[in-house]
Amino acid sequence: MSTQAVADIGLIGLAVMGQNLILNMNDKGYTVCAYNRTTSKVDDFLNNEAKGTNVVGAHSVEEFVAKLKRPRKMIILVKAGAAVDAFIEQLVPHLEKGDIIIDGGNSHYPDSIRRTKELEAKGLLFVGSGVSGGEEGARHGPSIMPGGSEAAWPAIKEIFQKTAAQSDGEPCCDWVGGTGAGHYVKMVHNGIEYGDMQLICEAYDILKQGLGLKETEIGDIFAEWNNGVLDSFLIDITKDILKFNDEQGVPLVTKILDSAGQKGTGKWTAINALDLGQPLTLIGEAVFARCLSSLKGERTRASQILSGPQIKPFEGDKKQFIADLEQALYASKIVSYAQGFMLMREAAKEYDWKLNNPSIALMWRGGCIIRSVFLKDITAAFRKNPELENLLFDDFFNKAIHNAQEGWRRVVAQAILWGIPTPAFSSALAFFDGYRRETVPANLLQAQRDFFGAHGYQLLPQYATDKQPAGTWHHTNWTGRGGNVGASNYDA
Amino acid sequence: MSTQAVADIGLIGLAVMGQNLILNMNDKGYTVCAYNRTTSKVDDFLNNEAKGTNVVGAHSVEEFVAKLKRPRKMIILVKAGAAVDAFIEQLVPHLEKGDIIIDGGNSHYPDSIRRTKELEAKGLLFVGSGVSGGEEGARHGPSIMPGGSEAAWPAIKEIFQKTAAQSDGEPCCDWVGGTGAGHYVKMVHNGIEYGDMQLICEAYDILKQGLGLKETEIGDIFAEWNNGVLDSFLIDITKDILKFNDEQGVPLVTKILDSAGQKGTGKWTAINALDLGQPLTLIGEAVFARCLSSLKGERTRASQILSGPQIKPFEGDKKQFIADLEQALYASKIVSYAQGFMLMREAAKEYDWKLNNPSIALMWRGGCIIRSVFLKDITAAFRKNPELENLLFDDFFNKAIHNAQEGWRRVVAQAILWGIPTPAFSSALAFFDGYRRETVPANLLQAQRDFFGAHGYQLLPQYATDKQPAGTWHHTNWTGRGGNVGASNYDA
Repeated sequence: MSTQAVADIGLIGLAVMGQNLILNMNDKGYTVCAYNRTTSKVDDFLNNEAKGTNVVGAHSVEEFVAKLKRPRKMIILVKAGAAVDAFIEQLVPHLEKGDIIIDGGNSHYPDSIRRTKELEAKGLLFVGSGVSGGEEGARHGPSIMPGGSEAAWPAIKEIFQKTAAQSDGEPCCDWVGGTGAGHYVKMVHNGIEYGDMQLICEAYDILKQGLGLKETEIGDIFAEWNNGVLDSFLIDITKDILKFNDEQGVPLVTKILDSAGQKGTGKWTAINALDLGQPLTLIGEAVFARCLSSLKGERTRASQILSGPQIKPFEGDKKQFIADLEQALYASKIVSYAQGFMLMREAAKEYDWKLNNPSIALMWRGGCIIRSVFLKDITAAFRKNPELENLLFDDFFNKAIHNAQEGWRRVVAQAILWGIPTPAFSSALAFFDGYRRETVPANLLQAQRDFFGAHGYQLLPQYATDKQPAGTWHHTNWTGRGGNVGASNYDA
Repeated sequence: MSTQAVADIGLIGLAVMGQNLILNMNDKGYTVCAYNRTTSKVDDFLNNEAKGTNVVGAHSVEEFVAKLKRPRKMIILVKAGAAVDAFIEQLVPHLEKGDIIIDGGNSHYPDSIRRTKELEAKGLLFVGSGVSGGEEGARHGPSIMPGGSEAAWPAIKEIFQKTAAQSDGEPCCDWVGGTGAGHYVKMVHNGIEYGDMQLICEAYDILKQGLGLKETEIGDIFAEWNNGVLDSFLIDITKDILKFNDEQGVPLVTKILDSAGQKGTGKWTAINALDLGQPLTLIGEAVFARCLSSLKGERTRASQILSGPQIKPFEGDKKQFIADLEQALYASKIVSYAQGFMLMREAAKEYDWKLNNPSIALMWRGGCIIRSVFLKDITAAFRKNPELENLLFDDFFNKAIHNAQEGWRRVVAQAILWGIPTPAFSSALAFFDGYRRETVPANLLQAQRDFFGAHGYQLLPQYATDKQPAGTWHHTNWTGRGGNVGASNYDA
């Protein structure tokens, strides 16, 4: 067995994503060394999927490292968490200054921040890189979002950008930013993916329960939508799924358990939004919808004692309603992405990153699960104005959402009267209606907090006076009772 | 200056809550020792609010401890976080085995878990106790939610239960559970408080923007609601606030900045729900609504370029609509509390607590910010059936929500057509409509995940076969392309 340094890059972890990513890099002309903890998988892979390629295998960490050209570049693609640290620990003793460890899994960004610091302290370079696109994307060109030790970027740029999906001749891979930024942006990507999927489920539900359509008819509608503003990977596969019949000729989707997993990146995104104080309502509702779906037993019992409106056959203009639904989905999507970019803007401040919005949109434009024509428009909006405060301030999206809103409102109002839950559609609409309001009713909320907890309030600028200048805090003794002591440093 | 052990209990932190709690305990016949880091506050307090009472003061931690009868009981009521640890560190060297430190602030429950362990290791007892009721509650009887070192309970039970609010002759204080449970339940209480306040703001907004009513008219409506199912502290103070005019005769609330703080217990509650996988949608939306309110500058700019429907004078039956709105608020509240108790049930499993639902409802029944007649009904529901799976399964609330739902739907649908944001009303309704569904559209979501990431799916039990038994995972090659390798341990 040769232990010459023959490989341009190594990859650890031969689940489907790892295998496909290796084959993809091989196609692009790179020699890849494959390793897996259970080493029989290495042989299986070399003798089957990788047969006839330039892929080489390793049966130990030592051999793996020995087969890599310097500076060594190695991608770890295993389950996020302890497994990543375990491989890093095994690799480090065999590495040299300037070698580059790349974590391509779904690691949580604080872990990537920690790993970058730990490895840089040892003279090594670390890159936390989001990779999206599922097995097909990995095979033919995923979206790749690397961040971490900036000195690593020149060494991996070519191979990463060639391996990534190409969109209109541009690679869906660019340097995202400093420590943790790659996995952070991937996390937000996944949160948005949760949102997109929930929106599609709500549209499916309305078409099925509200209009009484069958899966194949709904598939046709998704096929049509895939030619318009919703043109995207997820709409495309939804069409395929709805039209996929099992051996009995029944749509397979109707037999699948309606209980979705939710522990992961979507949850992290929602938690981060709460921590940073950003109203990421749509993704939040999408995560909670998965939580609710997983309570299958409790829902089943609830369904026996809780009832809603009887859904009568739809008597309106079905075609118009379906067009409205398309607009509802589109408008909700615009809100979701606007919220996602709001969150990333705040994160860049919080973690001191310089995130490049046009690059992020381009990285998501192709290869990944949320790839869509829509992201081309987002890329254009941010290229036109990289300082754009909000997607909704861009002319294109501003027009799009105004154009969509009437149908959007009709759909949500109808679903509510039908008793069909649309948590994502309606939270997006509530955000839109709140966001476009100069004043919201939080004045009452602040008064309440001052009433019961002496928390104080500020005045609207137009009511500021010399005695009560803008930006200062005031307490009113609303009842005439109580003392004159403020809450000061106690938060009731 | 005497340093005899004269005091039944001590309290550190003389902000408004601390002062009032001392005066309350004094009224109940206990001698309280008061201490504050800035000791001039101690003298101010003794010479003013506490003049003529049995309250004694201390000007150093040593003197404070020396004045407490054994086992020493001392309440720390300072800003959550480092200040609590700082006082504990100062106190510990002066304490003896069996002494009891009580943190009555809004500490995060993981801190209380840590502190209980640390202090028990030193032979001391620690109680993390939620205290709610604002300044008035603290003065005349708050809701008190203690948990932690169980051995402390007999020593503090009498003073806590006498100091607490009384509801129908029962104290709104009981032992909540083991380490962290007191602050956990207080956290959920505060989350629910966020939800209740948001619901009231949405009702106010609809009455003002939708029906075009003035603050004083809206105050009359809240006054009327306060005689019905919504009878509660928050509705009561809302009526007072809306009717409170400033020196110019203008409702003060209309001059208050519509930008609410949100970093705290509401956020923690939502994050915990995400971590435990429980659909706490209403509180989540309430927290996000505060986030949105705080983006005053961005909203102001957005208001200039985003528009919605023109609200026309309401032509329907106003009285009916207001009755519908009352039901919408009531039904949403039922959902919010149902979600809160779902979360606490899961937390009890997760943290190994034995939470007593009837006691929790009773503790919230009086004294605290969310006190209401409603909580009397919740107490009754859990007393009738302590194993009640969900509030919505109780006859009373089941009837109540069915009775409310028509009006609830009309209000939310109308708000959507008006363009008035009702994130809490509508997320509650979406939850109700999802929760009562045996099947939700997550079947499509699972199919999507299997399609792009080979995550696998389960079949509905009725479609299980010998080849594909229930509970097993299957992967379909939806496209006929791609490999036969599962995602196994890689989460795309």
